Amino acid sequence: MSAAPALALERLSGIAERLFEEVRAATFDGVGITRASYGEGEERAMGIVERYARETGLVAERDAGQNLILRLPVEAPTKPIFIGSHLDSVPQGGNFDGLAGVVAGLLLLQHYRETGQAPPQPVRVLALRGEESAWFGKAYMGSLGLVGKLTKEDLELRHRETGATLRSAFAALGLPVDRIESGEPLMQLSKVAAYIELHIEQGPAMVAREWPVAIVTGIRGNLRHARVIAKGEAGHSGAVPRWLRKDPVFAVAELLSRLDEHWRVLQQMGMDLVMTCGIISTNPASHAISVIPGEVNFSFEVRSQSHETLEQFYKLMRNECEDIASARGVEFQFDRRLYTEPARMDPAWVERLLAAGRRTGLEIETIASGAGHDAAVFANAGVPSGMVFIRNRHGSHNPHEAMELSDFMLGVDVLYQAINSLN
Amino acid sequence: MSAAPALALERLSGIAERLFEEVRAATFDGVGITRASYGEGEERAMGIVERYARETGLVAERDAGQNLILRLPVEAPTKPIFIGSHLDSVPQGGNFDGLAGVVAGLLLLQHYRETGQAPPQPVRVLALRGEESAWFGKAYMGSLGLVGKLTKEDLELRHRETGATLRSAFAALGLPVDRIESGEPLMQLSKVAAYIELHIEQGPAMVAREWPVAIVTGIRGNLRHARVIAKGEAGHSGAVPRWLRKDPVFAVAELLSRLDEHWRVLQQMGMDLVMTCGIISTNPASHAISVIPGEVNFSFEVRSQSHETLEQFYKLMRNECEDIASARGVEFQFDRRLYTEPARMDPAWVERLLAAGRRTGLEIETIASGAGHDAAVFANAGVPSGMVFIRNRHGSHNPHEAMELSDFMLGVDVLYQAINSLN
Repeated sequence: MSAAPALALERLSGIAERLFEEVRAATFDGVGITRASYGEGEERAMGIVERYARETGLVAERDAGQNLILRLPVEAPTKPIFIGSHLDSVPQGGNFDGLAGVVAGLLLLQHYRETGQAPPQPVRVLALRGEESAWFGKAYMGSLGLVGKLTKEDLELRHRETGATLRSAFAALGLPVDRIESGEPLMQLSKVAAYIELHIEQGPAMVAREWPVAIVTGIRGNLRHARVIAKGEAGHSGAVPRWLRKDPVFAVAELLSRLDEHWRVLQQMGMDLVMTCGIISTNPASHAISVIPGEVNFSFEVRSQSHETLEQFYKLMRNECEDIASARGVEFQFDRRLYTEPARMDPAWVERLLAAGRRTGLEIETIASGAGHDAAVFANAGVPSGMVFIRNRHGSHNPHEAMELSDFMLGVDVLYQAINSLN
Repeated sequence: MSAAPALALERLSGIAERLFEEVRAATFDGVGITRASYGEGEERAMGIVERYARETGLVAERDAGQNLILRLPVEAPTKPIFIGSHLDSVPQGGNFDGLAGVVAGLLLLQHYRETGQAPPQPVRVLALRGEESAWFGKAYMGSLGLVGKLTKEDLELRHRETGATLRSAFAALGLPVDRIESGEPLMQLSKVAAYIELHIEQGPAMVAREWPVAIVTGIRGNLRHARVIAKGEAGHSGAVPRWLRKDPVFAVAELLSRLDEHWRVLQQMGMDLVMTCGIISTNPASHAISVIPGEVNFSFEVRSQSHETLEQFYKLMRNECEDIASARGVEFQFDRRLYTEPARMDPAWVERLLAAGRRTGLEIETIASGAGHDAAVFANAGVPSGMVFIRNRHGSHNPHEAMELSDFMLGVDVLYQAINSLN
C-alpha cells in the first residue's frame, strides 16, 4: 500500500522510554504513581508531554476542557483523527494506564514531523483529563465534557480527599462550567474523523494467550446492583430442622451456582458475558457460627458488549431469584439497578487495525474490553472509534502493571499502518 | 400401672406460675432476664427456689459445686434419680430456659411431700449453675465440674464483663478449686440412677408439628470450623475472562450447593444432620462491586446425634473442597477443627418417657436436641440420661421465648408417670 517510510522503531522506543520514566519520576508517590484527576499529578504529566511536544516542533494547545491537544504545525483541511487517552491515574496506580496511549500518539506525530511525511488525514493527539472514577466517583469526566454529557449532579460530586466539588475543580482550571452544565459539547464532534485509543489490557487474557497486541471489538457495558439483600429467618443452627429453615446463605449459594452454569452455557453459545459477585456478607453485628443467618447481602454485576445480552442475563437472574425465593422461603430485595451502556468499536476501524496488524507480521486477534475507556464515550456519541490493546501483566490500578516496551512499539506500529492504509 | 395418686395439675400449675413470676421479677433487666453464671441473678433465682422448697417442707442443700439439691426429708436408701436443669441465663434472655426444668422437679417433690406418696426410687432436684457459655465462653461449667471434666485452661477463662477468671468466681463461692483442677468429680456418679431434664425446645419444630411435649433421643454434637478461607485471585470484574478466573465466591457457592444436596439425600436416607454456614464474607477492606474477590471466608458447622455421621459429612465436605479447588484454581485453608461430642439419651429412659407420655393421652414423638444441654454431659459421663422437651415459640436466648403453662404441666405429668413406671 503505502510508500510511507517505516517507523524508526528503535529510536522512537528510546523516546518513549525516557518520556515514561520522566512522567513516572514526576508523579511517583513512594508506592506507585498518583495523578489525580484535575489535580497536581495529572497537570505535571500534561506539562511534561506539552513541553516535550513543543521542544520537538509540534503545536501544543489546551482545548475548552483543558485537555491537551498536540498536532503538526501544518495540517490538511480535512477532518482529523484523534489518537487519545488519559493522563490521570488512580492513587498508587501504574504508569502506563492512560499515559501509553498519549505517548503512542506523540511518537506518530514526531515521526511525521521528522520525516516530513504528511499523514493521509490530519492526526492529532488528545491527552484527556479525568478518566479515573477514583477521585470524584465518576469516570470519563474529560471525554464526557467534550461530548456534552456531564450533568449538574456530576458537577456537585466531591473529591475523595479534599471534599471540593468537581465544579470548583473545573472553575479553578478555567473550564466553562456553564456550557458544561447546559450539556453543550465542548468539541465539534461532526468534525472528528475518528477517535483511536491505544491502552494496556487490564486483564490477563493477552498474557495467557501470548498476544502482544490485540484489537478491541467493543467495550463491555454492565448491569449492576450494589446491594441485594436475601432475607431469610435467623435461628439456632442446631435446633431448626432442614424443612423449617429459611436460610439466605444457601439461597444465594444456589443462585450463584445456577447463574454460573447459565454463564457457562451462554458463553458456549457465543455470547459475550462475564459475571461477578464482588461483595457478599452476612451481618457482622449478628452473625455467628451457630446461628442460621437472618440475611446476607451481595452485589451483582454482569458485563457484556451487547445490550441485549445484559438484559437477557439480568432477566434470567431475576427469574432465578423468584424461583429460589419461593422454594426456600426467602426474599430478595434489590437496590437501584445501575446501567452502563456497552460501546461498539467502529467495524471499519476494527478491520483496518486488524489488517494493519497482519501487515506488521503479527497474528493479531480481537478482544473485548472489560474495563471502560474514553473510547466508549466517543463511540456512544457517534464518533467512529477504535482501540488497540497492549499486553500487560498484573492488571491495572496498581504499581505492578508491567507493559513491555517492545509490545508497546508493536502497537504503535499497528496504529501507524492503520492510518497509512487510509491512503 | 400405678395406683399412685394423679398430680393435682391445676394446683401445681398455680405454684409453677407464681414461682416463674417471682424469679422473673427478681432477675428482670429491663429487656429480658439476666442470671449470670456464678453471678448475682443466678444466685437470686437459686435463693428463691431454695427458700420456697424449705418453706414447703423439703430439704435444700448445696453440693460441692454450689449447685442446689432439693430432696424429700425421708428417702429410700436406693440410688436417686436427679431431675435437673440450670438456673443461669444468657444476658437479656428468656425466663424458662433452664428454670422450667428446676421447677418441674420441685413440683414433683412437692406432690410427693403433700400426698405422702413415696417415689419408687428417691427423686432429687439438681438446680445447676453455669450452663450458658455467654458469660465465660464455656458452657456446662456446673455439670462438667460435677463429672470432673473442667480443665486448668477452663479455670482461666474470663467473665465477659468483669474480666474476672472462672477460678476466682469459683473461689469466691467456696468451690474446691484444687479438686476441680485435678479433674476429681464432685459427684459420685456411680451412685446416680439417672439424670432427667425437662427443657423448652429451642427450635421451631414442635410448634410446627403441634407437639406440646416430645422425648429427646439424643443431643447433637458438632464439627466446626470457625473460619475457612477460600483463596482465589483478585481481578478486574470486566477484564478477566471466565477461563482465567479463580473466583473464590463462585467456589464457595458451589461447595455450599453441593453440600446442601448431600444433606438432602443423606437425610432422606435417615441420617440425623443439620448444616449451617453462619458467617460468610468477602474482605470489607478490599471488596468492591467491580473486583473479582481475592478471597472469601466462611464458617462451617455440621451437627448430628451420630459421631459417625459427623465424620462422614466432614469427610464429604473436605473431598468437595479438594474437587472444587482443583477445578476452579482456588485454595481452601482451614483453621482448627472443633469437635463437640454428641450424646445419646438412655434408650430405656427414652422408651419409658414415651410410654409415660402415651399413658397421659398424648401422641408423643421423639426429637433430636440441636442445642446442647447438661444432660449431654451426664450421658457422656456414663449416667443414664433422658430429656423431655416442651413446646416453645420464638426460640430461646431472647426475651420472646413463649412456653405455655399447660404444655409445661403436660411435660411434668410425663416425668411423673415415667418415674412411677419404675415400680
